[in-house]
Amino acid sequence: MKLLEDRIRKEGVVKPGNVLKVDGFLNHQMDVGLFNEMGKEFKRLFADCPVNKILTIEASGIGIACIVAQHFNVPVVFAKKTQSINIDGDVYTCKIESYTHKRTYDVIVSKKYINKDDHILIIDDFLANGCAVNGLIELIQSAGATVEGVGIAVEKGQQPGGKLLRNQGIRVESLAIIDSMDDQTGEIIFR
Amino acid sequence: MKLLEDRIRKEGVVKPGNVLKVDGFLNHQMDVGLFNEMGKEFKRLFADCPVNKILTIEASGIGIACIVAQHFNVPVVFAKKTQSINIDGDVYTCKIESYTHKRTYDVIVSKKYINKDDHILIIDDFLANGCAVNGLIELIQSAGATVEGVGIAVEKGQQPGGKLLRNQGIRVESLAIIDSMDDQTGEIIFR
Repeated sequence: MKLLEDRIRKEGVVKPGNVLKVDGFLNHQMDVGLFNEMGKEFKRLFADCPVNKILTIEASGIGIACIVAQHFNVPVVFAKKTQSINIDGDVYTCKIESYTHKRTYDVIVSKKYINKDDHILIIDDFLANGCAVNGLIELIQSAGATVEGVGIAVEKGQQPGGKLLRNQGIRVESLAIIDSMDDQTGEIIFR
Repeated sequence: MKLLEDRIRKEGVVKPGNVLKVDGFLNHQMDVGLFNEMGKEFKRLFADCPVNKILTIEASGIGIACIVAQHFNVPVVFAKKTQSINIDGDVYTCKIESYTHKRTYDVIVSKKYINKDDHILIIDDFLANGCAVNGLIELIQSAGATVEGVGIAVEKGQQPGGKLLRNQGIRVESLAIIDSMDDQTGEIIFR
C-alpha cells in the first residue's frame, strides 16, 4: 500500500537491532485517517471472506482493528496480556513471546466472545517472528472458530513470521513488507 | 446518552465489589457502531473546544478514542503502562493506581507527541476514582499543554473521581453516569 510505504519512508526511523520506529503515526500517536485508508484496503483484500469478527491483541493493535472493523461492520475482540480480575475465569489462554519487550505474556480471551461459528480476521500492527499472530490463531483454534486471514500493517520480511504463516496455508495480507533496512543510512527497502 | 444506558441495562452485569462488567460491547469485545454514536455525542458536547489531539491510556481506552477521533479529525496518543524499549528515553511520566487491577503502573508518553500548543481531549472508557484521568492530566500539564476536557463512556457516580475533577474546574462529560447498582438484583440506576 503506497500510502503506508510513503509514510514509513518519510517518518519511520530505523534503529539498531532491526527496530523500526513508527510511533508518530502507527503505535503511540495514531493517525486515524491513515487507519481508515488501511481499513478500506483490508476490506478490498478480504472482500471474499465471510468475516464476522476481528481479533487483535492489546495494545497497539486495538486502534487499527477498530477502524478496520468499521469497513467490515463487525465487532472487535482484543486479547488481553495479563489476567484481569474483571475477566471471568472462563477464558481461552495462550503464551506469547514479545519480540519488542523480550518477555513472555499470558494472553486471554473470554470464551463468551469467540465461538465455533466465528469467521475471524486477525489484525495487528506488526508481524515479525509471528509470535503474537500464532498465539491468536491458537486461541481461535481452541474455540473451534475459523481463521479467515491475517491483516498486518507492517511486516518485517527479514524475519520468518510471515513465511511460516503462509507455509501453514494461512492467508496473510501485509500492507507494507520490509525487505531490508539500514540503521546507518536510514534506508528502508520494501518488497 | 440513552443508547449507551440502554445497552448497559441490557448487557451490563453487576458483580460484587462495585464491579460493572460491560466487556461484551465496551472493553473486551467492542461494538464499533456504538463507539461511532459515542463519537458523534462527544463531538456535539465538545463542539466549542479547539481540540487538536485526543489522549487516552492503554488498553481499553484506545478503541473508543480512535473512533471518537474521527469525529474531531485529530490524531490519538495513547499513554503506555510500562517502559517499552521502543520508546525513546525522552518521555513524560506519572504513576497511576489501577482500581481494577489493584496495582500501580508507571505511565509514559513520548515528549514528541504532546507539546505546549496542544489542546487535548482525554477519552477513557471508565471513570471511578479518577486515578487514570488524573495521571493523564499530570502528563498534559508536564508538557505545558491545555486540557480541553474529559470524555468518559461510563462514570461510576458513587466513586469520587468525577466530582473531584469537576471541583478542579475540569470539564467532564460522561455518556452514562451510574448512581447506584445492586449486585443482588442486577439493578442499575443512572443519574
